[in-house]
Amino acid sequence: MQICRVVGHIWATKKESSLEGMKLMVLRACRDGIVTEEELVAADLVGAGIGEDVIVVSGSTARRAAGSDSLPIDAAIVGIIDTVETEREKKW
Amino acid sequence: MQICRVVGHIWATKKESSLEGMKLMVLRACRDGIVTEEELVAADLVGAGIGEDVIVVSGSTARRAAGSDSLPIDAAIVGIIDTVETEREKKW
Amino acid sequence: MQICRVVGHIWATKKESSLEGMKLMVLRACRDGIVTEEELVAADLVGAGIGEDVIVVSGSTARRAAGSDSLPIDAAIVGIIDTVETEREKKW
Amino acid sequence: MQICRVVGHIWATKKESSLEGMKLMVLRACRDGIVTEEELVAADLVGAGIGEDVIVVSGSTARRAAGSDSLPIDAAIVGIIDTVETEREKKW
Amino acid sequence: MQICRVVGHIWATKKESSLEGMKLMVLRACRDGIVTEEELVAADLVGAGIGEDVIVVSGSTARRAAGSDSLPIDAAIVGIIDTVETEREKKW
Repeated sequence: MQICRVVGHIWATKKESSLEGMKLMVLRACRDGIVTEEELVAADLVGAGIGEDVIVVSGSTARRAAGSDSLPIDAAIVGIIDTVETEREKKW
Repeated sequence: MQICRVVGHIWATKKESSLEGMKLMVLRACRDGIVTEEELVAADLVGAGIGEDVIVVSGSTARRAAGSDSLPIDAAIVGIIDTVETEREKKW
Repeated sequence: MQICRVVGHIWATKKESSLEGMKLMVLRACRDGIVTEEELVAADLVGAGIGEDVIVVSGSTARRAAGSDSLPIDAAIVGIIDTVETEREKKW
Repeated sequence: MQICRVVGHIWATKKESSLEGMKLMVLRACRDGIVTEEELVAADLVGAGIGEDVIVVSGSTARRAAGSDSLPIDAAIVGIIDTVETEREKKW
Repeated sequence: MQICRVVGHIWATKKESSLEGMKLMVLRACRDGIVTEEELVAADLVGAGIGEDVIVVSGSTARRAAGSDSLPIDAAIVGIIDTVETEREKKW
């Protein structure tokens, strides 16, 4: 899994029908609490908002987490992070 | 998923028979709305044109989106982007 | 598989229900015994602690190692490293 | 999929028996028609030769393209490129 | 697949039970015959030794090559390289 920051939202009228109703967010991967250049798009399964730090799964795991192995998604938000504790000091 | 820009089209007469009739596009990954060096080839499932920004899935998700788990593709265009909204200001 | 160092622990109240009870650790990939910048999150299946060096599997392998193909995880700790021996001299 | 240049051929007597008779080629990933440093090995399913530009699939897609889901390969050549047209001028 | 050099061996007493008896090697990816910084761990299926150049498969392909889709491995050595011939001159 990856820790990512939600930085945006995508609208796409012309798309695979099974994506209808799916909330697609723009994310940036985080490293040591810092937002990096690495950008990806993920389906939001837990109601995350712009600015929140989230847990993202990818590949076939994302499809299954979203409820069906035939969904055309390969990344999904599966948790909103409260705290990350690393080596005795709290990061967030 | 990735946000990519369609930059080209591929013709290949000698190929796996199941690729017959499949529209193969050359794409560049985008980051923060800017086209990067990262190049990939994807099957077009929604009729995207050169110059358009699209949503691309990869791996086994691409095969299933294209309709069959035995298709020899590992990336597919599943949406054409209208707008990307990031942190209160519209990017496109 | 990857060799990683366990550097932290994640708490997330709002998450996919099937992640309930799953211990999620923050890891850094190691190279030649040195901790790199590459950060990832993995489910802990063997009771690893912060500071330990571990063996991590990813993708669908991680789901199956954790016991169910529908779990929303794509990385899992499957072993705690005692020693790495490289070319006649012991690294750890 | 990736666009790659075929740069070499591999011989390996001691290998998994199911790789017997499989032609293994050394490839370099191309970007914008230029051969990059990224090197990989793929099974050749269409009779490509050294110096040709090809379409390569990876992961479980490669196994299925080669005809069996249990084959120990994770990359396969599935097409030989005639032309790549990008933004109104022919690259090759 | 990747061409890698075997550079080490891993011992881990505390691990997933199904890894019992599995020989885990430390590898470095090769490029153009030169050992790079990219480090990974793979199960050895063909009896490779430290210093040998090998063919490595990853992902679900590795599990199946090792004999069972539920094994907690995502990389496996499936061949020991005799020669790599690139563009009319022998590399090894």
